[in-house]
Amino acid sequence: MASHQYRSTIPIAVNGKRINQRLKKLAEFGINDHGGIDRSFGSAADIAARNWLKEWWQKVFQSEVKVDPVANLWIEVTGKEKLPPIVLGSHHDAVANGGKYDGSIGVLLAAEVMQTLEEAHFPMRHPMRIVSFSAEEPNPYNISTLGSRSITGVLTKKDLEMVTHDATKVKLTDTIRSLGGDVDHLAGNLLHPRDLSAFLECHIEQGRNLFDCGRSVAVVKGITGIYREKIKVIGEANHSGTTLMKDRHDALLAGSELNLALEEIILNTNQRDVVGTVGRFDVLPNAANIIPGEVDLIAEVRTTDEETLQQIIDELSSRIRVIEKGRRVRILRETILNQKSVPMDQQVQLTLKKVLTSMNEPFLEIPSMAGHDAVHMAPIAKTGMLFVPSIDGKSHCPEEETNLEDIIKAGNVLLQTVIALDKELD
Amino acid sequence: MASHQYRSTIPIAVNGKRINQRLKKLAEFGINDHGGIDRSFGSAADIAARNWLKEWWQKVFQSEVKVDPVANLWIEVTGKEKLPPIVLGSHHDAVANGGKYDGSIGVLLAAEVMQTLEEAHFPMRHPMRIVSFSAEEPNPYNISTLGSRSITGVLTKKDLEMVTHDATKVKLTDTIRSLGGDVDHLAGNLLHPRDLSAFLECHIEQGRNLFDCGRSVAVVKGITGIYREKIKVIGEANHSGTTLMKDRHDALLAGSELNLALEEIILNTNQRDVVGTVGRFDVLPNAANIIPGEVDLIAEVRTTDEETLQQIIDELSSRIRVIEKGRRVRILRETILNQKSVPMDQQVQLTLKKVLTSMNEPFLEIPSMAGHDAVHMAPIAKTGMLFVPSIDGKSHCPEEETNLEDIIKAGNVLLQTVIALDKELD
Repeated sequence: MASHQYRSTIPIAVNGKRINQRLKKLAEFGINDHGGIDRSFGSAADIAARNWLKEWWQKVFQSEVKVDPVANLWIEVTGKEKLPPIVLGSHHDAVANGGKYDGSIGVLLAAEVMQTLEEAHFPMRHPMRIVSFSAEEPNPYNISTLGSRSITGVLTKKDLEMVTHDATKVKLTDTIRSLGGDVDHLAGNLLHPRDLSAFLECHIEQGRNLFDCGRSVAVVKGITGIYREKIKVIGEANHSGTTLMKDRHDALLAGSELNLALEEIILNTNQRDVVGTVGRFDVLPNAANIIPGEVDLIAEVRTTDEETLQQIIDELSSRIRVIEKGRRVRILRETILNQKSVPMDQQVQLTLKKVLTSMNEPFLEIPSMAGHDAVHMAPIAKTGMLFVPSIDGKSHCPEEETNLEDIIKAGNVLLQTVIALDKELD
Repeated sequence: MASHQYRSTIPIAVNGKRINQRLKKLAEFGINDHGGIDRSFGSAADIAARNWLKEWWQKVFQSEVKVDPVANLWIEVTGKEKLPPIVLGSHHDAVANGGKYDGSIGVLLAAEVMQTLEEAHFPMRHPMRIVSFSAEEPNPYNISTLGSRSITGVLTKKDLEMVTHDATKVKLTDTIRSLGGDVDHLAGNLLHPRDLSAFLECHIEQGRNLFDCGRSVAVVKGITGIYREKIKVIGEANHSGTTLMKDRHDALLAGSELNLALEEIILNTNQRDVVGTVGRFDVLPNAANIIPGEVDLIAEVRTTDEETLQQIIDELSSRIRVIEKGRRVRILRETILNQKSVPMDQQVQLTLKKVLTSMNEPFLEIPSMAGHDAVHMAPIAKTGMLFVPSIDGKSHCPEEETNLEDIIKAGNVLLQTVIALDKELD
């Protein structure tokens, strides 16, 4: 790969060939027959990926990888001044049958930027640190952004001790211990505001915005709020032949109406960046000849606007009352997540945009509709995110892809942004 | 219990106390913490129930229990003449978390009637035989009315050899063998038309007809047809946050529309005894943050009228095309069951009604909206069914119940009907 030179930026560039090789290598851990990646937290593939990362990080940076109490991986190189470090990173785990780019790009570009600066003996004022967070993705422990939430104090030792693996019932804390963490030391090792100067995460967009307009990068303005309700529809299971239509309390039909009502409510907001989904939907007893007696579902709403969210919840409540009455079912609701939307740091956004402008690189400014570790880093450090395109908008699937050219471009944007922030920040 | 005497019927009656004791004993096999019965085909509870039945049948009837090639249990007592036997029976297996009466009543009343006749040294012309069929209910092998369908030649050895247990993957034929059957001998031991004189099955109604009008028994006119389609809705799984509403191909929303369309089509027939149900409904990948990419469901329609069924299927096809277009999904359909409706034998119905009239017992004449082993016995023998009430119309659940008084009444109806048929039939 040719090195890139930019107007009014430092003449230094990431190594595209190296990035490509490492992306390919990381994609070997957990690759399945469909070409997807199975590398959920605590899996053999996760362990293999961790060992690989630790090995070459230590070799390249001549420093010790620190495994924190929730098994996040960190490595740091010193700076000239006694300042809090600038941190880059993301996560290396994957959803079941996931893709090769989600998380991986952010971890590998973080290391590439740090390596490029080290190799150039670039005189950084700040120490620099990179991180790969534990369990960012949904996993069999039903706990995501585990690493960033725990190390910033959102999840406590007590929260983690209650969690077990869906299938094996292995305790989460035991898995963390097997990966080199120890939740007993969590409380004494939390990150606090101003412990870090800045946090930068590069990630695939996972949507179609960049792909549809053919741009290579987007500066993330903020990260969407995520609201989730666990909803239980209680009807009455009965024989599918002998129960007349008029005598039924069919939980599946009530659940179907609820799904369609949520969609209608979301569409009625007429806002492009508001989405609502029922992704989890379990029918009981789930037999061809039994009228469904219960449906357990999770309804999700994402928006950056609190007021819109409240309107949606209110409207859903009113629609649910109508369904309960019409179908003679009971519908129980429990809010299981109400993660507020988080703006990205203004200064970091501005620096990213200045770098992009000086590089003559057209970019988008968009919200992130997916949650990220950056959400939880934002209260600790000036936090920013850079998106690269997802081809066809696909993510969390084997077809997930990003052009190498865009990844390299993003690497250079990160590199120049770190250099700029290193100057600007105290 | 007092014995019952009826005008113009033979002064002989079943033993209510004995029926009650045996019902209670049979309900011990597979009883679970919810008060439901877990006694699916091949389970430990099934095996225990079989052993118990075999033991007391042999003791009471001083004859050998015959376990046929698909593990149906039979026992016969001789008659005075060389005629095909009159057979009574049902099944002793249960759906998961099922009730204490479905099937059990029919098996225990069959034995009670035969025992009462034997004890009275009643001079039957026909041999009499009782049966408990294997796997009448849905079970982990996904094959119901296994015993009656196999022994009458509807399911062949080849069909059975393809079947395995959902979870354990144990071969159905191995389970049959462990219960004393052997499908290698199936072809040589089939029941053929006129091998039996008559088949009578007493069963809980499972609907509300008898309960709502306060009657104790119903003569079944015929058994509903059951039509089932396996339907696969193929959308596109994608990230629930980053995929705009307009870009979605949500299989769950399409499936929801399909459920509601089927209900509407059924209601539009304006026929009381036409029902339609989606009881099985599986969403993939079924995660809170992923737009459902696929739904696998089973749609069922029950009616005694072929023409109505065809109208429903045609209308469903047209609605499915609209859903496919509107939601940009593909919907694949496969007919997995098209069991025609089966009328009950006219002579047996008439005899049942004459007995009931002579007993001054008010009764209903209704179709059975549930399938039964009697469906498959009808081509072999003059077949009839007698229903007893399901309290609140509940069945296939721990709350399933029938008053003992009604059960005893049905026992006496069966007893007098056997005596009458013994005279009438050759």
